[in-house]
Amino acid sequence: MDTHPVQKTHGYITSPKGFRASGIACGIKKEGVRDLALIVSDVEAAAAGTFTTNRFCAAPVQICRTRLESGRAQAIVVNSGCANAATGVEGLADAEAVVAETARLLSIPPAMVLPASTGRIGRRLPLQKIKAFLPALVSGLSLDGGREAALAILTTNTVPKEAISRAAPGGRGVIIGGMAKGAGMIHPRMATMLAFITTDAAVSPATLQALLAASVDRSFNCITVDGDRSTNDSVCILANGRAGNQPITSPDSADARLFARALDEVTAALAEKIVRDGEGASKFVEITVRGARDSREARRLGFAVANSPLFKTAMYGEDPNWGRILSSLGAADIDFDPASVELILQGHRVFRAGAPVAADDASLKKSLKGGDIRIEVIMERGSAAERVLTCDLTPQYVDLNCI
Amino acid sequence: MDTHPVQKTHGYITSPKGFRASGIACGIKKEGVRDLALIVSDVEAAAAGTFTTNRFCAAPVQICRTRLESGRAQAIVVNSGCANAATGVEGLADAEAVVAETARLLSIPPAMVLPASTGRIGRRLPLQKIKAFLPALVSGLSLDGGREAALAILTTNTVPKEAISRAAPGGRGVIIGGMAKGAGMIHPRMATMLAFITTDAAVSPATLQALLAASVDRSFNCITVDGDRSTNDSVCILANGRAGNQPITSPDSADARLFARALDEVTAALAEKIVRDGEGASKFVEITVRGARDSREARRLGFAVANSPLFKTAMYGEDPNWGRILSSLGAADIDFDPASVELILQGHRVFRAGAPVAADDASLKKSLKGGDIRIEVIMERGSAAERVLTCDLTPQYVDLNCI
Repeated sequence: MDTHPVQKTHGYITSPKGFRASGIACGIKKEGVRDLALIVSDVEAAAAGTFTTNRFCAAPVQICRTRLESGRAQAIVVNSGCANAATGVEGLADAEAVVAETARLLSIPPAMVLPASTGRIGRRLPLQKIKAFLPALVSGLSLDGGREAALAILTTNTVPKEAISRAAPGGRGVIIGGMAKGAGMIHPRMATMLAFITTDAAVSPATLQALLAASVDRSFNCITVDGDRSTNDSVCILANGRAGNQPITSPDSADARLFARALDEVTAALAEKIVRDGEGASKFVEITVRGARDSREARRLGFAVANSPLFKTAMYGEDPNWGRILSSLGAADIDFDPASVELILQGHRVFRAGAPVAADDASLKKSLKGGDIRIEVIMERGSAAERVLTCDLTPQYVDLNCI
Repeated sequence: MDTHPVQKTHGYITSPKGFRASGIACGIKKEGVRDLALIVSDVEAAAAGTFTTNRFCAAPVQICRTRLESGRAQAIVVNSGCANAATGVEGLADAEAVVAETARLLSIPPAMVLPASTGRIGRRLPLQKIKAFLPALVSGLSLDGGREAALAILTTNTVPKEAISRAAPGGRGVIIGGMAKGAGMIHPRMATMLAFITTDAAVSPATLQALLAASVDRSFNCITVDGDRSTNDSVCILANGRAGNQPITSPDSADARLFARALDEVTAALAEKIVRDGEGASKFVEITVRGARDSREARRLGFAVANSPLFKTAMYGEDPNWGRILSSLGAADIDFDPASVELILQGHRVFRAGAPVAADDASLKKSLKGGDIRIEVIMERGSAAERVLTCDLTPQYVDLNCI
């Protein structure tokens, strides 16, 4: 029980002490692809979550919201291939049935099991298939099952997304592990996809919720693939206290800050991995807006660029058509003075004081050949700065989503 | 001077009495493609316009706004291939130089000439090329030059967009002609692309502005291709009074209503043509939202669907994945009850009372094979209804915009 596959930078949701996981194929997806995952803490854990603001939130999201009022949970059961959203009362009953059967097999109360789903909207869960494979899912739980679970929550993703970090609140080493699923339908607002985080730190439920919400806002809420906000977005964290640290009970304490920094490392890493593996993406784009009046304004400007199809296609084409960046900033409904905007593309200043800056078009074009593109927008309205991450829009995005 | 090429449904901006036009190639675009257009009224006309709300509005937009304070104009000079946006004071001087030279050649005051541009942002106008060809543009003016002008304002459009209509305010027949340019970077907010309208009706400038703004709101402001709002969007109308009707001087008069209805026919026809010729479009999609609390809410819901990349790619793929419609409605930040939304796709009811309606998947899929797709969203919040037009998102959109 004490040999954890922890390395310096790589790790799994099973890296923190006292967590086991598994991931199997139960037939929701075709051809034996993994589509059912389970994460279990050895003991009851403090639990917190942030969820989509979509009005058509899925049945499992509705259930999680209620479950988490207690601040306690011990297991998370996740399926991919079916979102169980827009499925009415029958969808709720389906999700409750999965939860009840999982709890029975784990010999824990159903109130301790959180459900999550991702996949096509408007279809019922294939309940018989799932129930038939739950015993195998439970019996497959292991200390090194993190990777299998990370694979089982993917949809059109190409690679599993995992991250870990460490902290030492009160001098006691704790580990935070996380896994996420992204791809398309990615846009911020509370949470933007599925992410599950485990930690062996002892944290009170209220503090865990506050620290999670703040960390999600700094990470997952700053990314976009296509501007679509899913019905199933969920970020859940379980903190089982197995590290034996003095419990963190206030979000303002020094220990909470140490923990928060480590949590940010995990959420930031997962958020970046989601963007890099955006549907059809060939470019990773970082847009930094500085000198905005406040954070909200900075993000609004950043997302105006990040969600512009014309900007995204230009990046795909490696076309230094920075006029499209200005145009999307100008359409953000913020009353800035166009003459006080400075634009830097891949380190080349291209626009300043209301007019183009003579730039070397050839080297500008060449600078877009790589996989990473950095854009800086400098306003003269205040001191707020925000960073938004996105990817390009490619013909592959359309191909992936039109079937 | 009195033989106008007017047919029942087809016509040009030269169809109303007293308008001449021309369109030629001056070398802004490659390979002899037309890129310079001129519309001239024989006499000074009442003039009105609506323009983009983009903060980086182009130099010609800034000039038109000032010019139209007088409510009078006689000519419109338009180039494609260069937007003259984000070009600073030099861009303003370039646009003024084109206006001045056009006015000189027409022997009218520069204040009577409205400029417009469309094309790449951030590049200076090729002033020498334009000046060299202005004499040919002016000498080419003719009563049947409407089609040439309509061709010269196109960018990636595949077909010229023109419309005419007739009305008889005070029993006197008047004609309204219009032409537009669309393609990409199409999203509403005041105006959404270039459109020029001519009429031989006599209308006072203030009434003309009020009627134009209302008509634009009902037409161009209800369409979207890609959610991008251009720096150059302009809709201008010239009313030269040559039909000899009693001048229309109040937007509330019976004559104004007759004129407004005819104006709506032209703007609605041009708006639909823009969407049907959206960049890379293979489907024309009409989204009607009924039972909304107010028009603003109805449009917001309609555009949430119309601008969703996942919805648009599903339409391209002829995939009846209506869950994406619900998801985009749910992300519109309106606090509706998901159980009170009804969704009808191509006449098939697919969702009602919070749950899917058993639908024949095969016939649903078959119904998407045609070029036109109709979606109805029925809320239970009020009596407002709005119609939003859009097209699908295709690999061709990306291909067209990545170079």
